[in-house]
Amino acid sequence: MNQNRPIRVALLGAGSVGSQVARILLENAEELAARVGAPLLLTGIAVRNVDAKRDVDLPKELFTDDAERLILGSDIVIELMGGIDPAKHLISLALSTGADVVTANKALVAAHGPELFDQARRVGAQLTYEAAVAGAIPIIRPLRDSLAGDRVERILGIVNGTTNFILDRMHTRGDSLEEALRIATELGYAEADPTADIGGYDAQQKAAILASIAFHTEVPVELVHREGITEITIEQIERAKAAGFVVKLLAICERVTGSDGVEGISARVYPALVDEQHPLASVHGGNNAVFVQAQAAGDLMFYGAGAGGVETASAVLGDLVSSARRRVNGGPGLGESTHADLPVLEVGEITTRYQIILEVHDRPGVLAEIAKVFSDFGVSVSTLEQRSAGAQDGAPAGPSAESAEGGATLVIGTHAATERALSALAEALAAHEASRRVTGVLRVEGAL
Amino acid sequence: MNQNRPIRVALLGAGSVGSQVARILLENAEELAARVGAPLLLTGIAVRNVDAKRDVDLPKELFTDDAERLILGSDIVIELMGGIDPAKHLISLALSTGADVVTANKALVAAHGPELFDQARRVGAQLTYEAAVAGAIPIIRPLRDSLAGDRVERILGIVNGTTNFILDRMHTRGDSLEEALRIATELGYAEADPTADIGGYDAQQKAAILASIAFHTEVPVELVHREGITEITIEQIERAKAAGFVVKLLAICERVTGSDGVEGISARVYPALVDEQHPLASVHGGNNAVFVQAQAAGDLMFYGAGAGGVETASAVLGDLVSSARRRVNGGPGLGESTHADLPVLEVGEITTRYQIILEVHDRPGVLAEIAKVFSDFGVSVSTLEQRSAGAQDGAPAGPSAESAEGGATLVIGTHAATERALSALAEALAAHEASRRVTGVLRVEGAL
Repeated sequence: MNQNRPIRVALLGAGSVGSQVARILLENAEELAARVGAPLLLTGIAVRNVDAKRDVDLPKELFTDDAERLILGSDIVIELMGGIDPAKHLISLALSTGADVVTANKALVAAHGPELFDQARRVGAQLTYEAAVAGAIPIIRPLRDSLAGDRVERILGIVNGTTNFILDRMHTRGDSLEEALRIATELGYAEADPTADIGGYDAQQKAAILASIAFHTEVPVELVHREGITEITIEQIERAKAAGFVVKLLAICERVTGSDGVEGISARVYPALVDEQHPLASVHGGNNAVFVQAQAAGDLMFYGAGAGGVETASAVLGDLVSSARRRVNGGPGLGESTHADLPVLEVGEITTRYQIILEVHDRPGVLAEIAKVFSDFGVSVSTLEQRSAGAQDGAPAGPSAESAEGGATLVIGTHAATERALSALAEALAAHEASRRVTGVLRVEGAL
Repeated sequence: MNQNRPIRVALLGAGSVGSQVARILLENAEELAARVGAPLLLTGIAVRNVDAKRDVDLPKELFTDDAERLILGSDIVIELMGGIDPAKHLISLALSTGADVVTANKALVAAHGPELFDQARRVGAQLTYEAAVAGAIPIIRPLRDSLAGDRVERILGIVNGTTNFILDRMHTRGDSLEEALRIATELGYAEADPTADIGGYDAQQKAAILASIAFHTEVPVELVHREGITEITIEQIERAKAAGFVVKLLAICERVTGSDGVEGISARVYPALVDEQHPLASVHGGNNAVFVQAQAAGDLMFYGAGAGGVETASAVLGDLVSSARRRVNGGPGLGESTHADLPVLEVGEITTRYQIILEVHDRPGVLAEIAKVFSDFGVSVSTLEQRSAGAQDGAPAGPSAESAEGGATLVIGTHAATERALSALAEALAAHEASRRVTGVLRVEGAL
């Protein structure tokens, strides 16, 4: 079986994931050869600076700063540099030679996926990217292959480990956002500049990728509504907890019908309340999980490590072995398909539920006035809790607690309504003369 | 794209899964054709009695009792009859014509998988069986493809919905085993003859399949150690709960080193204690989940519906679409591989932990005598709790409570030891003159 000629594998990038991929390729060479049916030969590792210090001790002679030359002698190219340039150019070069490409580059797949998949299809090469979403968790392949005969209705994903770590700290330890972020940075969960994570940009790219696979539709990143966790307060977290919820930053992809009756999809990222009984609620620390609702399969969840060098390397190697097997056995692999080509709806069109926390003047008739605002906007109230100032059991006093004398707090859960109606309602409530302050507005997702 | 010639699909069996597969094939024909690149044409449904009543209203003219004739005109055969005969003969016939086969038949795959995979390989056909384990949950493909570059160390699976439903009822509602089984039967979770489920035979077959894929090794069903849940008492469940555990029937597959230093694998099924913080502990009702520990990926969990007609149909259709795409695009698919060929170790060789509940005579020196038995067998005590008779807070009185005057109950958790040492220890404890009765012996799995 292993008399087959070796498959030449080029690695671009030797960061935390790349160095682990190289290590495993070298250490597990025999086992991998048995699985593929031919040896996997690591021909080189292209890096910017061949003398830089690496996480893993790798043979010096493998390193080169000439990525193009390395690519030209390869059967499979693994791109783990990240970013758009020069990754895009190098992947395109590899595909143009007929080489298969494995990448973990979510920014690139989200922004330029369709164009690169198209190029791969034309030359009969394979471009795989399991590691681009949810690290080690197999999610791309299950969505594309295992659910190929089903109809995905909705995906709720915790796809950013940094923000999950932060929100989990706030929930379980009562840390402030700043404190939790500081610890995340110390422990290496957050980068020096955490904007991509806490601003929701990373999750936005992943939502675009998940939606495009699940719904067979091109989903440009710009059409994914994005809100980060930067406005989340410990007060919101405590209130959520008291009401039986956990705050999670969710990437949500779903089939929706717009107000004009047009079938389409929505992809969006925002912090939302999740019922504490929901499987996503028990995803702690830096872990990721993707909850999938399909027409026939019902509810599925895929859980595991969303980041980490060696964990992500597992996903890269899975793609590598699959592409390598295909090279040994012949035949084209599975192409990407955007045959469904559904419209991507604006966030205003989607249906959701809100939990609104409102500080109001404590005087007769206030509740009726507020209730009227709800009915004016056609939004029904599902749950309502009224607390006088100072009687906030469990929840810490908010910044305006001192000025809240004569005030009361309303915690109002709505029934389902369009995002458009709900956000207009929230604005009207903030402007209403009976209201002192809107303390929190969060969507509730993952109804049980 | 859809100018390709139709792919002729034959269905064998029209039970709860088969009728749903047929319905979806007919209802979603257009969408499936787009995904495959060619129409999927359901050419017929072979059943024993063409006039029998079906769950789903399907065109009469599709039904036939001539399975062989149907198979001979097909590109892909879906076998959903279950059992060994005539399923084995018909699958073999289909493969002999070069047709791909999709099956949900765990008994057949567990018992005759290697021989059928071999036949498929020889003719270049594909035999897939995602639905055979854990219903709708994608687990076969992730293990085979996504983790193809990793090294699976251990699998802990809740792979039988009936027993999970029963144990969950006992845990959450305090039902007795008999009562929970009665409700499971009423709700359709359990068959009229529940032996295959509660005796652990169903899980045993699934464990054999999971172990063979995870470890690239042939694992005959007979080598999978099996214990059912028939001996589980509400007392054991309550004690487990009080100690922070949940009782789950687990299918366990792991790499182990035998006492002779030989590397091998173990596959076994038994009810075990799982820490209530473990992700498997929150798998409720009839759901399934497979927890996978891999060298690089770390901990992964796959969760969803383990049974049900339409849910299982999702997995069948996923396999069908994959095989059909391969027909359209050409090229061989992935064969099974047992290249690793590891020995399957006896259960005595594996390392585990026990929780032992022992009623002893309440007299001076008893604890020392019992402790000596542990040290004689080289097993260390990890936790020990002693309760006098009548002081069993929380746990209901066992059947021998009346006769327990002058007795005490010891709840002893052990450190890790070999199964052989632990079971010999349990026997010695039962025979010891200080002991009145061994109330419960359960293994503890899924250490956090």
